[in-house]
Amino acid sequence: MTALSPGDAVARVAAIFVNAGCSADNAQSVARALVAAEADGLGGHGLSRIPTYLQMVRAGKIDGSAKPSATRPRPGVLAIDAAHGFAYPALDLAVAELPAIASEQGIATASIRRSSHCGETGLPCEALAIRGLVALLFANTPGAMAPWGGRQPVFGTNPIAFAAPLQGRDPVVVDLALSRVARGPIVAAKQRGEPIPQGWALDAQGNATTDPDKALAGSMIPLGDAKGAALALMVEVLAACLTGANLAFEASSFLDGEGPPPATGQLLLALDPSAFGHGQFGERIAALAAAIEQQPGARLPGARRLANRARAARDGIVIPPELEALGD
Amino acid sequence: MTALSPGDAVARVAAIFVNAGCSADNAQSVARALVAAEADGLGGHGLSRIPTYLQMVRAGKIDGSAKPSATRPRPGVLAIDAAHGFAYPALDLAVAELPAIASEQGIATASIRRSSHCGETGLPCEALAIRGLVALLFANTPGAMAPWGGRQPVFGTNPIAFAAPLQGRDPVVVDLALSRVARGPIVAAKQRGEPIPQGWALDAQGNATTDPDKALAGSMIPLGDAKGAALALMVEVLAACLTGANLAFEASSFLDGEGPPPATGQLLLALDPSAFGHGQFGERIAALAAAIEQQPGARLPGARRLANRARAARDGIVIPPELEALGD
Repeated sequence: MTALSPGDAVARVAAIFVNAGCSADNAQSVARALVAAEADGLGGHGLSRIPTYLQMVRAGKIDGSAKPSATRPRPGVLAIDAAHGFAYPALDLAVAELPAIASEQGIATASIRRSSHCGETGLPCEALAIRGLVALLFANTPGAMAPWGGRQPVFGTNPIAFAAPLQGRDPVVVDLALSRVARGPIVAAKQRGEPIPQGWALDAQGNATTDPDKALAGSMIPLGDAKGAALALMVEVLAACLTGANLAFEASSFLDGEGPPPATGQLLLALDPSAFGHGQFGERIAALAAAIEQQPGARLPGARRLANRARAARDGIVIPPELEALGD
Repeated sequence: MTALSPGDAVARVAAIFVNAGCSADNAQSVARALVAAEADGLGGHGLSRIPTYLQMVRAGKIDGSAKPSATRPRPGVLAIDAAHGFAYPALDLAVAELPAIASEQGIATASIRRSSHCGETGLPCEALAIRGLVALLFANTPGAMAPWGGRQPVFGTNPIAFAAPLQGRDPVVVDLALSRVARGPIVAAKQRGEPIPQGWALDAQGNATTDPDKALAGSMIPLGDAKGAALALMVEVLAACLTGANLAFEASSFLDGEGPPPATGQLLLALDPSAFGHGQFGERIAALAAAIEQQPGARLPGARRLANRARAARDGIVIPPELEALGD
């Protein structure tokens, strides 16, 4: 079990997906996203996804050979059909096309439908911020959170991501799910046979629970209670209704080979900071970053992720042997 | 003390602002916004603002005669200068211009700089949703929340608003500040000489407090803790850095006549649901609304606001006598 450089890890992981019948382009795109999430310390969106992704490919729930296609219904809109493939090739297409459109229009959006799990949502936003844009991503995910006052999941954990360029340094990146905690820690507690803390989840009757099984059969508590549920509704409208995707409660699981494709959606927004009639963006955001970083104990969102990434570049990434063998 | 119809209440309130030297157009715009917030049950953004608005006008902190102006630096961007006037005339201009631009481009944004308190943030989004658009508003407000781990306020309570059209009924409207509670209830507790609950605010040393004076000298706790602080940073970048406005911690108070104009910012986004290459938006959002409303105890965000509005239309709005006299 050796540690690989991130580049070598991408090649190894891509080989696993090629062996499973995915196109080389798709395998490369998926591998880049999984290794980047692993390097960033977000293991729940990293290599741990390989077994379930392979189940989904083998069951036809993800089409490993799908090629995303785009139309431009209006000057500011790129409408992408992920064609029941992985989300990552569709996101790559959006990241490749949005900078020119945003520069021309000032603001542009890419909608993605017939998509799937999109992993570390900060990554496509960060890629756009590296190209000088302010970016937002809204994604829906299979049903996990109930409307406030209700019991049955209607919304996913519905992440919001955001990134903005900071001159001379890495972009600031925000990447958060709208549940108080992610589902990953509940799945992990179940595997360890341990209870979960109060305040994470409700059972199917809408009561607080510390039993991970009951939590997984119930619903996740939104951050900020009613406000988080309202934000999850907003994300659902943006990521599913606008894009023409499945709603969270219609989507099949991202975690097994059962059922039809999830067909969830993502909406990316890109704004050009030079398009607002003033040249102050760089100075304004630098002043904001300074006001945060001068306070002891405070840091910019995404700072821990960057530290993890630097460590992975230095120490390498270990692909667990049971996965490693799948690439041979 | 009689109850006036909303229309008559607008005329009375407008007269107060004309008497204070505001232009008739501005007085009308401010009065419409304050009466609408009052009718919606959001008294903190309603008639209770009249005394402090008048202080700000008399001190020159708000220019009651300012006329907002717009340029169009790129096809999808309307850049509005509120010229140190009230926010409402600038928001009215954005709401008037954005539908045609969003229809043409698919997505459009209006930035507002040199602005001020923008009250019930759901209102301009709702106005755009009535015109068939999906709308978002991000606004920054004077410093109130510390970065996560820090002590000094850097962000405002930085509201996010959202609205989307629902066929045959009122739009769904989300309107929330990113602090766990608004500042209004703390000010009210101070006036009553009562403590505030734990979990609302921190003192200037970053410790939990139940003393409203210490809370107002300290910082508000963001909803969802670190995640809410990250969202507040996102709003700051969108509403201030992109627009060219003051950052929250640079802005003077919305609540007195001291100091220079607040010069805060707002960013409105408008997306045309028919611009995404499919005709499913109406069906998708109706299915989402139904999945929420079929659950006992759950309702769409904004439902209480609509009930309050209907009650105000039926029972009328009372202008307190001490304010009433200002309009004569």
